Amino acid sequence: MQPDKGQTRKSIKQRLALKSRLAKETLAEFLGTFIMIVLGCGCVAQAVLSRGHFGGIVTINVGFAMSVVMAIYVTGGVSGGHINPAVSFAMCLFGRMKWFKLPFYVGAQFLGAFVGAATLFGVYYDGFMSFAGGKLLIVGENATAFIFATYPAPYLSLVNAFADQVVSTTFLLLIVFAIFDSRNLGVPKGLEPVVIGLLIIVISSSLGLNSGCAMNPARDLSPRLFTALAGWGFEVFTAGNNFWWIPVVGPLVGAVIGGLIYVLLIEIHHPDPHIDFETPSENKPEKYEISVMM
Amino acid sequence: MQPDKGQTRKSIKQRLALKSRLAKETLAEFLGTFIMIVLGCGCVAQAVLSRGHFGGIVTINVGFAMSVVMAIYVTGGVSGGHINPAVSFAMCLFGRMKWFKLPFYVGAQFLGAFVGAATLFGVYYDGFMSFAGGKLLIVGENATAFIFATYPAPYLSLVNAFADQVVSTTFLLLIVFAIFDSRNLGVPKGLEPVVIGLLIIVISSSLGLNSGCAMNPARDLSPRLFTALAGWGFEVFTAGNNFWWIPVVGPLVGAVIGGLIYVLLIEIHHPDPHIDFETPSENKPEKYEISVMM
Amino acid sequence: MQPDKGQTRKSIKQRLALKSRLAKETLAEFLGTFIMIVLGCGCVAQAVLSRGHFGGIVTINVGFAMSVVMAIYVTGGVSGGHINPAVSFAMCLFGRMKWFKLPFYVGAQFLGAFVGAATLFGVYYDGFMSFAGGKLLIVGENATAFIFATYPAPYLSLVNAFADQVVSTTFLLLIVFAIFDSRNLGVPKGLEPVVIGLLIIVISSSLGLNSGCAMNPARDLSPRLFTALAGWGFEVFTAGNNFWWIPVVGPLVGAVIGGLIYVLLIEIHHPDPHIDFETPSENKPEKYEISVMM
Amino acid sequence: MQPDKGQTRKSIKQRLALKSRLAKETLAEFLGTFIMIVLGCGCVAQAVLSRGHFGGIVTINVGFAMSVVMAIYVTGGVSGGHINPAVSFAMCLFGRMKWFKLPFYVGAQFLGAFVGAATLFGVYYDGFMSFAGGKLLIVGENATAFIFATYPAPYLSLVNAFADQVVSTTFLLLIVFAIFDSRNLGVPKGLEPVVIGLLIIVISSSLGLNSGCAMNPARDLSPRLFTALAGWGFEVFTAGNNFWWIPVVGPLVGAVIGGLIYVLLIEIHHPDPHIDFETPSENKPEKYEISVMM
Repeated sequence: MQPDKGQTRKSIKQRLALKSRLAKETLAEFLGTFIMIVLGCGCVAQAVLSRGHFGGIVTINVGFAMSVVMAIYVTGGVSGGHINPAVSFAMCLFGRMKWFKLPFYVGAQFLGAFVGAATLFGVYYDGFMSFAGGKLLIVGENATAFIFATYPAPYLSLVNAFADQVVSTTFLLLIVFAIFDSRNLGVPKGLEPVVIGLLIIVISSSLGLNSGCAMNPARDLSPRLFTALAGWGFEVFTAGNNFWWIPVVGPLVGAVIGGLIYVLLIEIHHPDPHIDFETPSENKPEKYEISVMM
Repeated sequence: MQPDKGQTRKSIKQRLALKSRLAKETLAEFLGTFIMIVLGCGCVAQAVLSRGHFGGIVTINVGFAMSVVMAIYVTGGVSGGHINPAVSFAMCLFGRMKWFKLPFYVGAQFLGAFVGAATLFGVYYDGFMSFAGGKLLIVGENATAFIFATYPAPYLSLVNAFADQVVSTTFLLLIVFAIFDSRNLGVPKGLEPVVIGLLIIVISSSLGLNSGCAMNPARDLSPRLFTALAGWGFEVFTAGNNFWWIPVVGPLVGAVIGGLIYVLLIEIHHPDPHIDFETPSENKPEKYEISVMM
Repeated sequence: MQPDKGQTRKSIKQRLALKSRLAKETLAEFLGTFIMIVLGCGCVAQAVLSRGHFGGIVTINVGFAMSVVMAIYVTGGVSGGHINPAVSFAMCLFGRMKWFKLPFYVGAQFLGAFVGAATLFGVYYDGFMSFAGGKLLIVGENATAFIFATYPAPYLSLVNAFADQVVSTTFLLLIVFAIFDSRNLGVPKGLEPVVIGLLIIVISSSLGLNSGCAMNPARDLSPRLFTALAGWGFEVFTAGNNFWWIPVVGPLVGAVIGGLIYVLLIEIHHPDPHIDFETPSENKPEKYEISVMM
Repeated sequence: MQPDKGQTRKSIKQRLALKSRLAKETLAEFLGTFIMIVLGCGCVAQAVLSRGHFGGIVTINVGFAMSVVMAIYVTGGVSGGHINPAVSFAMCLFGRMKWFKLPFYVGAQFLGAFVGAATLFGVYYDGFMSFAGGKLLIVGENATAFIFATYPAPYLSLVNAFADQVVSTTFLLLIVFAIFDSRNLGVPKGLEPVVIGLLIIVISSSLGLNSGCAMNPARDLSPRLFTALAGWGFEVFTAGNNFWWIPVVGPLVGAVIGGLIYVLLIEIHHPDPHIDFETPSENKPEKYEISVMM
């Protein structure tokens, strides 16, 4: 490791380092959503492909939550670790992110989730090929499509399905707002991702039965599109009475409601008049933007 | 986002912000208990309605505990995160909250739990309708009433049932007092809710068999009343030899005993003479009021 | 709450408050071991008495570990939270506690464990009475004695049983020493109990099969004595080829070996010459005494 | 405890204390890997030897992860807690450890894992002897070889097996780099081992189905060699189409890729120009070297 070599590498770094903050954030959101899908949907894959021998509801709920924790640790200091279009949308709406960033964040999230689904398929390629005689099925006991995207329970009507996605994302955002509200009880700095992980454990253990608790348009739509292209066919979109749009639109509505409830019932009443939630985001401390999610 | 708009919203905020501290606290207790019931009882709902396929004792015990953690993070910095009339009662008795606040706290807790039960019923409406052919049952293998309120095990006598609620709430309060006692080992600030979550995991795993470990009058009575009105019928009150009053009265007794044990065996003997537990609550540091619970 | 009353209570406090530090510590060790047994053995009781419906290896291992966590939070700031004669013995041997305290600590631990076993029996009295037609059995599918004390697996020889208790307690103490060694990586202050809980989870998940991983003379012998007196009979001592003495003597040996390994392989080589592990305990920082365990 | 005795012991200490930092680090890596294997593979042993009655996928995944946590707490402040040749290799490659240390670290890791496997065999000797009539088998329902080393699923091709080890170790290192990157979100100091434990839980729950997620040459090869010598026979090397070399070589490749991805997508773009990742390791803060893993 001669100094010259260090010199050379330093200049390589200087050439590679992104100057634009938005470019870095976009890259981070891509990477974070990618990680969440590979590791999170991977927990479902392991449970399904082993027919329950090496995974089940506990490893899925805990594992998916921890995949979100890890994605936030990788991206939180750069982009705020949204990894969820509904979160990014709410951040813009509540003045915590500028609107012009939204398409970059959302695009990176959808792309990261798609590449993540493809990577997971590759890692378990032999497993998929041997699971149902090589057939990639959407329904029945050999179904594997729900490893990637969520599907509704047989009993679920469209109205209830929509309400379900709205309500679960409402709780998600309401509590995420609390977790990052330093004027409330206050999660110690650097541990917010872990507490968010605990939050996802409880939501997926309590509100996951109706349709698997997607709460995230990118987490659901991109892997669904991947399965459509990879061999499961476009019935992944028509299945469950054209269910596909519900985990896309529902979370957007729920995120707004969740944020509103927290702001109106808690945040607005905090005594300190100097820190004001309507302050435009550029004056906010960096940390506040970290809002995150599954 | 023009400055004018910010102006307008600021004045909206000024109009909405509560000036009364008690009003804020009441609102917070309502919201916290609401969250605990939707997410906590939701874990039972998911396990029962899926007949164990998507939940079991692990997701219920961990999930319910985490619902308490989240409720405290949402409310702890405002109201102390009691979300339990037995806790509020003990706080008053031990001079850590003024008595005139008690009816507001307790009323908000009962109301929040009722609205939470109704919300959970709505989220899983299709599930309830399909579970037992639309019948809402209190006993038998298709019973669902115990999703909302607790019922005694078949073997349990009333005496043992009462002792059970007293003992489990005794442990709850005894250890909660320790968790917030900064002169003892000391949970790091901001992590008390997580340690309380671990406490609830162990209590519900060890003392939950007799009657489900309610330890909280609001958590039990309000959802029970909801089920009576929503179609399960008023047999929810007569079931188990009129069991309903035991998780209401038992926790009040246990909370007092738990607090007393901690104070008499540990707190009273702390060397520092300047911080005195009989000091009226208004002179206490804010943090100390956070006492909390399921 | 008139000032006069406050006066009165203050003098009550002054009358009740223990002046002797040793008396406080003894009281704390009694309370801590009591908590550990009620909540820890309670997890076994819930799993056994429900025949696995409301508990299993996960709730037992996690729950027992968390009972230790809670016992340490209640006692750690007063007595160091040993709650284990083997730990107290090792603390004396390594110069971290004075020898004259040992009988008080150990006596309190044995007494607390006995009262804890009796309390647990009382809480689940109706359950025990209905479990096997009121019979309290030591062996067979209706056995309940192992709720309180540990028994060896059928395959286990006495030599292997003794080695098992030595090895598991060796790992326990070795790692507890690391957790409290501020010159190593360093668990954040106030979180040591939680990390010890994680340690007990892994030890009971990996070294628990041979004989249930007692690692603590008080945790095992006192509840065994209680069962002998409460109706299971003195066969609890002769069972398993007179197994009872192994979880009493083995942990004492293991604790010493574990401490020695840590000191010889890690602690002795720390660079800082000013903090010396041979320094008599009275000059040590209080925190260092907290050493703890199941 | 007379002063003279203290004197004597102090001089013993002075004689025993290692002066060489490398010697201390080597000793620590030996001890850490030893702990990881006894406690980690111990979780598999308990589940297998009890035929699932006292362990399963949850206790294995959580327990193995916590064995890594404990190994890091014991060694992190001394050697950085690598306990994995792939991690040490990556640390050298990215300029965070000097190359001359590599053979000492790796040698200690392989030796520690071997002694750990032997110790675990000893602790469960009676269990192994009674499990399959004393036979030590590699395949079939009475197989026990996979307690020590990993074996591929029946469906797995060599290409997919290699990709599996590369990808899982890529995620491991990528996220470990994030966990120790203080310019990112930042895990609180002293809690990095716990977050790494959570990381291992999710990786083993999501990417563990193909071949058990070794991600560590020492964790896999040394216990495999032990089983070959201890009675399972050298078929442990030929099993699974000579699978043995894949968890040895794959992790080395994956570690480099994981580090590269983190550096290129995240670390290189951090704004602060003063802390530079190409700085030779001797100028780095000690803490940064802690990189760790399973």
